[in-house]
Amino acid sequence: MPLTDRIDSALRDAIRRGQGGLAPRQLASALDYATTPGGARIRPTILVSVAMACGDDRPALTDRAAAALELIHCASLVHDDLPCFDDADLRRGKPSVHRAYSEPLAVLTGDSLIVMAFDVLSRADADDAARALGLIRALSDRTGMPNGICAGQGWESEPEIDLRAYHRSKTGALFMAATEMGALSAGHAPENWTDLGALIGEAFQVADDLRDALLDEASLGKPVGQDDLHGRPNAVAKLGVEGAMARLGDILAGAIASIPSCPGEAALAQMVRKQAQQIMPKVPTRARSSV
Amino acid sequence: MPLTDRIDSALRDAIRRGQGGLAPRQLASALDYATTPGGARIRPTILVSVAMACGDDRPALTDRAAAALELIHCASLVHDDLPCFDDADLRRGKPSVHRAYSEPLAVLTGDSLIVMAFDVLSRADADDAARALGLIRALSDRTGMPNGICAGQGWESEPEIDLRAYHRSKTGALFMAATEMGALSAGHAPENWTDLGALIGEAFQVADDLRDALLDEASLGKPVGQDDLHGRPNAVAKLGVEGAMARLGDILAGAIASIPSCPGEAALAQMVRKQAQQIMPKVPTRARSSV
Repeated sequence: MPLTDRIDSALRDAIRRGQGGLAPRQLASALDYATTPGGARIRPTILVSVAMACGDDRPALTDRAAAALELIHCASLVHDDLPCFDDADLRRGKPSVHRAYSEPLAVLTGDSLIVMAFDVLSRADADDAARALGLIRALSDRTGMPNGICAGQGWESEPEIDLRAYHRSKTGALFMAATEMGALSAGHAPENWTDLGALIGEAFQVADDLRDALLDEASLGKPVGQDDLHGRPNAVAKLGVEGAMARLGDILAGAIASIPSCPGEAALAQMVRKQAQQIMPKVPTRARSSV
Repeated sequence: MPLTDRIDSALRDAIRRGQGGLAPRQLASALDYATTPGGARIRPTILVSVAMACGDDRPALTDRAAAALELIHCASLVHDDLPCFDDADLRRGKPSVHRAYSEPLAVLTGDSLIVMAFDVLSRADADDAARALGLIRALSDRTGMPNGICAGQGWESEPEIDLRAYHRSKTGALFMAATEMGALSAGHAPENWTDLGALIGEAFQVADDLRDALLDEASLGKPVGQDDLHGRPNAVAKLGVEGAMARLGDILAGAIASIPSCPGEAALAQMVRKQAQQIMPKVPTRARSSV
């Protein structure tokens, strides 16, 4: 079964369970709306890939872990889109949950998806209790306070931001969760896998900075780096487009080098290279020459 | 150690962990603000009481369960107070979290407390993995969709409300979690304890209806039952004050009768009677005579 089918199937099972019985209909519908159609499902893809590299001896548990991680990611998108945060009208090409349903239902959708992530893992086979508990610990650690994505979002309310802590928790945390949980699903120690997740997270951050800068240049003709209205340095402002592209290449090379020795090491390196191609921004000639 | 000391100590440990390391300061502060000073801590008190009635052979696990349940309750208060729900300025005699901090921080505080609840349980001793996983399953079941407090709040967005499902999920769910998790903490089957939680939840609902009605009568002189602006029947509208008082007494008697045979049955019945005295509204003579 292709990875995305495994992931979508596990996710669909979780959502259906949450909609079952005598549930309020709109909230039940919003759970589906917030999780489909998926984006690239990149975090659970990394998780399953790491699990496979480690032998994937409990595939049903791996599937639960992948669904749980994607549920937390979807929950974070729903809450981040709320009027009090980004006030986003659109998400993945359709109205955001609070636009399509209502603000109360968007808050509840996020809450329900967070709870569902832990519920999915709690329903692991009794034989897998110890591993499932480790997965819950890893996921909660990378989601809540003081180090998870909640902390990352919380940094934006601070008068002074610790940039390293901010990026590591806001963007990096769920990538670290992905590699750690992939290892844990297959009974391997998570610590050896944290660096790979952190580096993939950093690569995403730099790729995001590049996309923002290149989109501005191509569409608005604004100079690189001036779009950072909050005064937060980013890779493009610091290094320029060419420099940031080089930095992205270095980070990805470092990520591949960080893969611990394991049976599926080569296949995993191949997956990281493939993901890298997808996130590597296509630099338009015009934009490139204007730097 | 008195029950409330056990509960507050476990809760404090969890909050401190969430504030540790390099955390954004305001969100860290809001976690504490949202959980102290506590209310009656009635749900975790029921949980620990049931665990003790069942032998409480893993007191550290019971303490984790009690803290987790109270964290979910506190999270629900923070989110319920948000402008898009109750828009409450005050909670427990001080400004609500979104008033004291900000709306973004209130959303994140609720999210972080939900995650923390599962985190606390995931950190149980390895020997207790199976029980801890059962506790997480029970807690997520009574918190999320389709049966938990999220569902309860979700019913308020529906054009037609299933009143039984609404009350059972909105008010009853965390009381059922309390009795089920108390049993689970001590290695007993949760199913035998659901009725006790459900009945205590019903008693709270009727006591709430009574308090609302009596407060209105005493302070505003409004007739009983007319304050139900949403057209949702409540016990006082249906039965009158005297009838609702009698119904409350019956429910509590039923709750005591439902206690399964266990070593601490008598002490638990005593605890339920004590809680009952606390929730039983004091009917002012004037209000009583006006019905």
